[in-house]
Amino acid sequence: MNHIYIKPDNWSIIEEGFDAERVKSSESLMSIGNGAMGQRANFEEHYSGETFQGSYVAGVYYPDKTRVGWWKNGYPEYFAKVLNAPNWIGINVTINGEQLDLAKCTKVEHFRRELNMKEGWLSRSFTATLQNSIEVKVDTKRFLSLEIDEVGAIEYNVTPLNSDAQIDFTPYLDSGITNEDTNWDDKFWDVLNVNHEGEQAYIVSRTMKTDFYVCTSMQTQVSLNGEALNQEKTVSDTIDKVSFTYKNQVSKGGTITMTKFGGYTADRNHDKNELIAVAKKTLSKVTAMGFDTLLKTQKEAWAKIWEMADISIEGDVAAQQGIRFNIFHLNQTYLGKDARLNIGPKGFTGEKYGGSTYWDTEAYCIPFYMATKDQNVAKSLLEYRYNHLEKAIENAQKLGFSNGAALYPMVTMNGEECHNEWEITFEEIHRNGAIAFAIYNYFRFTGDYSYIPEKGLEVLIGIARFWQQRATFSTAKNKYVILGVTGPNEYENNVNNNWYTNYIAKWCINYALENIEKVKEGFHDDYERVKGKTKITDNELDLWKKVADDMYFPFSEEKNIYLQQDGFLDKELITVADLPHSQRPINQKWSWDRILRSPYIKQADTLQGMYFFEDDFSTEELERHFDFYEPFTVHESSLSPCVHSIQAAKLGRVEQAYEFYLRTSRLDLDDYNHEVEEGLHITSMAGTWMSIVEGFGGMRIKDDMLSFEPKIPNQWDSYSFKINFRNQILKINITKEGTKFQLDGNDQIDILVKGKKVTISPNNMVTV
Amino acid sequence: MNHIYIKPDNWSIIEEGFDAERVKSSESLMSIGNGAMGQRANFEEHYSGETFQGSYVAGVYYPDKTRVGWWKNGYPEYFAKVLNAPNWIGINVTINGEQLDLAKCTKVEHFRRELNMKEGWLSRSFTATLQNSIEVKVDTKRFLSLEIDEVGAIEYNVTPLNSDAQIDFTPYLDSGITNEDTNWDDKFWDVLNVNHEGEQAYIVSRTMKTDFYVCTSMQTQVSLNGEALNQEKTVSDTIDKVSFTYKNQVSKGGTITMTKFGGYTADRNHDKNELIAVAKKTLSKVTAMGFDTLLKTQKEAWAKIWEMADISIEGDVAAQQGIRFNIFHLNQTYLGKDARLNIGPKGFTGEKYGGSTYWDTEAYCIPFYMATKDQNVAKSLLEYRYNHLEKAIENAQKLGFSNGAALYPMVTMNGEECHNEWEITFEEIHRNGAIAFAIYNYFRFTGDYSYIPEKGLEVLIGIARFWQQRATFSTAKNKYVILGVTGPNEYENNVNNNWYTNYIAKWCINYALENIEKVKEGFHDDYERVKGKTKITDNELDLWKKVADDMYFPFSEEKNIYLQQDGFLDKELITVADLPHSQRPINQKWSWDRILRSPYIKQADTLQGMYFFEDDFSTEELERHFDFYEPFTVHESSLSPCVHSIQAAKLGRVEQAYEFYLRTSRLDLDDYNHEVEEGLHITSMAGTWMSIVEGFGGMRIKDDMLSFEPKIPNQWDSYSFKINFRNQILKINITKEGTKFQLDGNDQIDILVKGKKVTISPNNMVTV
Repeated sequence: MNHIYIKPDNWSIIEEGFDAERVKSSESLMSIGNGAMGQRANFEEHYSGETFQGSYVAGVYYPDKTRVGWWKNGYPEYFAKVLNAPNWIGINVTINGEQLDLAKCTKVEHFRRELNMKEGWLSRSFTATLQNSIEVKVDTKRFLSLEIDEVGAIEYNVTPLNSDAQIDFTPYLDSGITNEDTNWDDKFWDVLNVNHEGEQAYIVSRTMKTDFYVCTSMQTQVSLNGEALNQEKTVSDTIDKVSFTYKNQVSKGGTITMTKFGGYTADRNHDKNELIAVAKKTLSKVTAMGFDTLLKTQKEAWAKIWEMADISIEGDVAAQQGIRFNIFHLNQTYLGKDARLNIGPKGFTGEKYGGSTYWDTEAYCIPFYMATKDQNVAKSLLEYRYNHLEKAIENAQKLGFSNGAALYPMVTMNGEECHNEWEITFEEIHRNGAIAFAIYNYFRFTGDYSYIPEKGLEVLIGIARFWQQRATFSTAKNKYVILGVTGPNEYENNVNNNWYTNYIAKWCINYALENIEKVKEGFHDDYERVKGKTKITDNELDLWKKVADDMYFPFSEEKNIYLQQDGFLDKELITVADLPHSQRPINQKWSWDRILRSPYIKQADTLQGMYFFEDDFSTEELERHFDFYEPFTVHESSLSPCVHSIQAAKLGRVEQAYEFYLRTSRLDLDDYNHEVEEGLHITSMAGTWMSIVEGFGGMRIKDDMLSFEPKIPNQWDSYSFKINFRNQILKINITKEGTKFQLDGNDQIDILVKGKKVTISPNNMVTV
Repeated sequence: MNHIYIKPDNWSIIEEGFDAERVKSSESLMSIGNGAMGQRANFEEHYSGETFQGSYVAGVYYPDKTRVGWWKNGYPEYFAKVLNAPNWIGINVTINGEQLDLAKCTKVEHFRRELNMKEGWLSRSFTATLQNSIEVKVDTKRFLSLEIDEVGAIEYNVTPLNSDAQIDFTPYLDSGITNEDTNWDDKFWDVLNVNHEGEQAYIVSRTMKTDFYVCTSMQTQVSLNGEALNQEKTVSDTIDKVSFTYKNQVSKGGTITMTKFGGYTADRNHDKNELIAVAKKTLSKVTAMGFDTLLKTQKEAWAKIWEMADISIEGDVAAQQGIRFNIFHLNQTYLGKDARLNIGPKGFTGEKYGGSTYWDTEAYCIPFYMATKDQNVAKSLLEYRYNHLEKAIENAQKLGFSNGAALYPMVTMNGEECHNEWEITFEEIHRNGAIAFAIYNYFRFTGDYSYIPEKGLEVLIGIARFWQQRATFSTAKNKYVILGVTGPNEYENNVNNNWYTNYIAKWCINYALENIEKVKEGFHDDYERVKGKTKITDNELDLWKKVADDMYFPFSEEKNIYLQQDGFLDKELITVADLPHSQRPINQKWSWDRILRSPYIKQADTLQGMYFFEDDFSTEELERHFDFYEPFTVHESSLSPCVHSIQAAKLGRVEQAYEFYLRTSRLDLDDYNHEVEEGLHITSMAGTWMSIVEGFGGMRIKDDMLSFEPKIPNQWDSYSFKINFRNQILKINITKEGTKFQLDGNDQIDILVKGKKVTISPNNMVTV
């Protein structure tokens, strides 16, 4: 269901009016997270309407048994599912004995939710009339602490408006939860221990198969008109649930408040026998601080993030809200503190797709994290793949490769493949290329070469070996070909010589060869270690070179363009503009064969290659390819509009770039794909950031310098962003009149602006 | 598990010695059927070892909810499963209170099973020593009556050998059965009524969702030393099972016999409220006849079948046993009595694949039934598809086709598609061609044109419309192309311009055009009716013609061969001979992508086309294509060796043809594919028949005459078969010295032998 109802606002996501049809969409849009845990915007109190309950603990997953129609050799046995964790937010409320339930109230008015992105909290308020005619006002606020990332805090206020009332709170923990997305309706959690002490309660549970131990805990406190109460409570504990009930007489106009702290301690971070002890300590600490003090740390922490990561846009509130929404959710999902984590496609906002890591991380997310955080964050993301190299080699072995060839998984949680469609799992192998490209990109941006001799070179060798083995020699073409692949455009399956795949394969081999040489020359010990470990020989490298040198690229002389794959021009080349609207989106209207034989492109493919390797192509070449391919592109992947926005901007087509920008930045806010209730498209949010910084801003690294080609959409007065470039912060403010650069650092730097070198000294604004 | 243990015998399938490892394989090999019901060779008495229980009622199926990894638009909601029906064969036996169970006896000797194909019965005998030291001899015989096809009969004899013993029989009916092959472990049957009267018992059950009502019934009788007993019995009935227990004191050396009649009455054939009444009547009838009399009718009925269908081979018992095994199972599966039925890929021998009808029926089975039965049987098989035409049009509509274009399902039970892999369901569209080809083949063989104006033309129009819409114009090639298909060789998916598919598409259009003309000229009323119904216009037919005339066929000038598909020569062309044995079968050793990019061919594809349309190609052309493609063919489809046997014979390569013949005829007997325990490959058995008659015999229809090019493998002294050609029976006996023809009919006919016309007069043997 497509709902456009979010109010325009520079810093907040605001919903007004209660509509049961929107509940699941808002639950996604207003999800909160702190990198370690996440929570969909489910109501605290019981809600009997349609809802998608989701509480997530980073890195805790379940290996759901694979479901396939027809088994193929090499399919993974399981699919790592993002796991709904035990509920810690629940607070049931009864008013004169009647349960507060927005689906059953006779009237709900003044319903308003605000996700305040600037400060990192979610509030909700409404007045409701229950079936017993009592009218209450409810105000809640909650956040997941950035400062102490194992807890969240909720303040839940109820005021009876038309009479005195008995208002009972039943805060609870519940481990008897199910997953929205399961293959076989299996139970995912074993409950080990349900316990309570004083105003605290704990449930220790363990995920089945993966044996993650998690303690879900809470501490509660009731106040009346701001005064803490110390009244008696009733405790109920069952096999998988524990609750406290506090009974309160509240006078008309008085406000009763439940303050609840809660969250998760997991054996990923603590000894599994210490989970309750750690939870106790943490809860006691935040209770002592109190809700307001903890909230203050939250605002400060978010201010610090925004200080570096914000992009401000003047004159266009929709565009402003869009980019902040994207940046906010990226930071809620991944903060770079834990090298075992990655950026899941739905973050902490839903379960679909499973797994946590796609090529999205390397192709779309790393530039954002690299430019807006300390460079160690990007390095962590690279190391994540280094740590999975052995599993990538095993994965390639399963598919018949040998000698240390590595094929990284399409989707993974722990390095093992989780996807199970042959055309993706076995054939969408271009993913390997993005992983090598990210190594190059990291070095290009940070100038930090150390990662390559230490770790990256082994990854590059495994990947190059894969490409050399995967390419086969075509006697007919007298060239190396790569048969049977799926390119980034997943609306083509099992094609031959996907240009993008062949191009990145060749590039990967050459880049590996270049770095073997560099490490050999400059890092003798590393070279010897890597050589001993990988057993590369000159003969093998010669073979690589032969494959790279003689790689085949499909090309049309007539059109003067590279073909997306062999035979592309045999299709009926009817552009998207001539496709009836009733047929869109084609992935919902057409059977798969029809999509496959059509010329329609889901997301940038040839153009993605020209984005990665733009220095290899002239602007005229890019323009020809853009003009040929974009008209066939349906942009039915969330990852499509951002790359097209960047390319359009590069071609000086700012208005077109702006349209793509709006589409990428408000994809979820305006629910373009009619699916926001399933969760948000987190990884494409980094593409939104790129479409401003690399698209309109035209930021690149050229000759080891930051380079800009600033452009600005008509709709905007100005926009600003910051880049953390080699430990100095450059602030860029682009207006229609010119661009201002200001450096926060110690050393002057040279940058390129429209190809001209400009020297920027610390704390000295330069206008170009 | 591959077991080769069947004794060579001209007429029987014989197993000697008990081996628990073979139980499931023998259960398949020794399955019995009568066209209306079928029964795997499960033991009557309890068996606690590994077994695959299967009892089947023709035409009774369950629409199992589809299971897929990733849903695609257009997938069917369900997959029609062959259903395990309630057990009627069970007879538990206790000896001095200990249950007879071959898995638990201390000794089993003289175990022997015989499936007597000549007479259509299965026997089993053994002596077993129980844990209580009693030694018994057991002799059983059973068959499913061809004469009265709703019953089977079992005679079960037990003789205590080393002491007197109490031998109790508990014959039962059991509806609490499960299916070997289910997607979601659903229950398939609702039990409605468990009942008994006298020595009869009945269970009425109903399939879930499809609502087939079936009464499973039995009547039992105990005899001692051949004398019927009238002793008391105990009756037990539970919610889904009914059993009688007869207690018998048997002296050492005496024989106690349980005679059990049982089977199914189904509402496909009777009013659902009459099922028990019909069962009662039928059981009473066969009980009155007695086991031996019913068995006599069985022998007579099989003699009649063999009289026409037998192929005798002198001098090669393995080859003889193979072909009779194939002919026997084909006749057990389908007798052509019921136009709603078809030839399931596993017949009544297993559940795998689901559905009952594949293109196998038209491509492989129709020639066998056409030549060995009354021509109405083949006509029934054609009508089956005519009756499904509306559903084929709906199926095509789901995939975006219009205006009455028809796409027949890949797999079906009632006309609706049941398969759910996009590369098959949506893309293996060549199946449509075989359905049109069968219409042509039927007319060619029988000379009966009436089917085309009455029914066939509508099918041909629907199919031609599909091909015209499915082909698209390639500006680059200036030809019509068919993109994104899977040919008969399923080791290629989503290829462009599969030669076989393009060829049969063109042929279908031309054949439809030709028949529209013929019907227009010769069958005015039919033409008007069909024109009114299908609304064909001259404009539309012009469009068809354009597509057929300008169809593209991939061809290699260099090799002077048609290419299986675009780009075939880009593969690494390593022949199967150079593939290490450890890599075979590739479908068990390789991941799917590796199979797809390899040149390996699962079954005849280009060569299948050259089989169907052999008159369009010279022998030299066939030879070139055979020599190119066969070396890449792994024959991992049961349908592969037969076509290759025919083609090799045509090329005069009799020894190679013989190798392929053995492989097709003994595929299941010698368990080439290590899977016989799942059931037999019924449809390919008709290919075995073709490999003798069309391969060695070289039978064709030429110039409206039967034509032969007789050849004989060195290993054979002679072979004989009969052909029902236009209601006269021609007997052919081929020896190394010459071929004898004898006609059983009233009118002399001309035939071609090695291209020369020979006149055969009734009852006058001619030797050529």
